[in-house]
Amino acid sequence: MTEYFTETGSVEAVTARVSPQADARLAEVMASLVKHLHAFVKDVTLTEAEWEIAIDFLTRTGQMCSDTRQEFILLSDVLGVSMLVDAVNNRKPAGSTPSTVFGPFHVDGVPEREMGANISLDGVGEPCLFQGRVVDLDGHPIAGATVDVWSDNADGFYDVQQPDTQPQHNNRGVFRTGDDGRYWFTGIKPVSYPIPDDGPVGQMLGQLGRHPYRPAHMHFLISAPGFARLITHTFVAGDSYLESDAVFGVKAPLIVNFVATEDAESAVRWRADYDFVLPPT
Amino acid sequence: MTEYFTETGSVEAVTARVSPQADARLAEVMASLVKHLHAFVKDVTLTEAEWEIAIDFLTRTGQMCSDTRQEFILLSDVLGVSMLVDAVNNRKPAGSTPSTVFGPFHVDGVPEREMGANISLDGVGEPCLFQGRVVDLDGHPIAGATVDVWSDNADGFYDVQQPDTQPQHNNRGVFRTGDDGRYWFTGIKPVSYPIPDDGPVGQMLGQLGRHPYRPAHMHFLISAPGFARLITHTFVAGDSYLESDAVFGVKAPLIVNFVATEDAESAVRWRADYDFVLPPT
Ligand SMILES: [Cu+2]
Ligand SMILES: [Fe+3]
Ligand SMILES: [Fe+3]
Repeated sequence: MTEYFTETGSVEAVTARVSPQADARLAEVMASLVKHLHAFVKDVTLTEAEWEIAIDFLTRTGQMCSDTRQEFILLSDVLGVSMLVDAVNNRKPAGSTPSTVFGPFHVDGVPEREMGANISLDGVGEPCLFQGRVVDLDGHPIAGATVDVWSDNADGFYDVQQPDTQPQHNNRGVFRTGDDGRYWFTGIKPVSYPIPDDGPVGQMLGQLGRHPYRPAHMHFLISAPGFARLITHTFVAGDSYLESDAVFGVKAPLIVNFVATEDAESAVRWRADYDFVLPPT
Repeated sequence: MTEYFTETGSVEAVTARVSPQADARLAEVMASLVKHLHAFVKDVTLTEAEWEIAIDFLTRTGQMCSDTRQEFILLSDVLGVSMLVDAVNNRKPAGSTPSTVFGPFHVDGVPEREMGANISLDGVGEPCLFQGRVVDLDGHPIAGATVDVWSDNADGFYDVQQPDTQPQHNNRGVFRTGDDGRYWFTGIKPVSYPIPDDGPVGQMLGQLGRHPYRPAHMHFLISAPGFARLITHTFVAGDSYLESDAVFGVKAPLIVNFVATEDAESAVRWRADYDFVLPPT
């Protein structure tokens, strides 16, 4: 007897169609996706009108995407999916610095700068010295680690969001540690900013009564041969959005006291000291 | 103590953010969506590379959509979601004609034709008489029922897919029953056709080892005051894709014997008799 599609047998009807020759991992992922998607439809008894809203929302989300805007990543971010994918793929030994979301604003190919350089190319914002060490689980310095950093400018925008008004690579830099594992550079004290909210994801946040803001943070991507690559941020302690980050990126060990400095000789007004601990690969 | 995002508390972290002022149904639907989406990510331990493939797939799916192409509906169709939404919203009393997927090829505003008219405006294909009655659960005729029908042409395309080569409203018609509840019109014996498979959904079907074909069918949308609207097809018995409809639309009671006719006087070569049973609203 042929088994046609039924409400109770809906998952099996779909997964039974997959060829035994299909890639085993693809078949596994799709079977799980269909199982959870059908359970969702059944649990809420999704109406035909709601299904139409969902089709329209996904379509508009895709059509909002461009070379400089990735609306589906924003959607993944605000639903906690990005942080969850990060979590299940970056379980680290105790003592390691935790990871957080990569975000859409990293740029490849930023030139390496001399240790200590100033990455604030527009000179706007409150100058801040970032410094610390890259170390292994035993606290020994890691030499030759690449420290790739990026933050928004004093107005809350990344250079790639304002290519006409910000210098290229403003508030970005790549540094390499020496034998002491130390890094230091001057940037600005980052400011909180809204994720782009003029598209479907912003509308959804509005309907859920959620704000689009992220607490102020500096992005770090740290790699060293023999060690697990670390993608993370440091967050500015005291920021009013720490407890409601629109993308759920905050973890307690990543919150850093930015300390006001008093040195009249120097332009630097803040200091953020932080050591990064990398487990081996 | 603030609760930041954790792998185990991921669902609660996201749903706790929804404002108590948000629409209650929206909050309910989103909470369920987040729960099942996170369970999917956890069950398969979705890798970062797979997440990137998913983001790219969804983006391309959205960008494939146009005025004449709805790739997200195709995605919903081939994952069985469209049939499941149909199922949970159209539970009918025993004896009713079952519903099936609406599909993306219905057209609003087709002019009403006189009962018995020929809807095959291009004259290509094997002429077929469709006839039967629209009745209630007791078998009494329903007068004044609107019978809106559409099918592909002999090449397997709907008129809207070939606006330059097919006459407008080719193989479409709207009819209205009289006191006897009868309908009859001439069309062509429908042919099986592939859903549009030159986009991301077609690529996905290919990777799963699934074909894109639908078994031959005539679409019906039947409405009458006081009765539940019926969206369904009749399928041609013996079609080789009945057991593997790409969108899972087949139900046994919708399969109809198309009978060869021998009347030398008439151009009609096939006959499909079918009664539609509508429950009250
Ligand atoms: Cu689930
Ligand atoms: Fe950021
Ligand atoms: Fe069709």
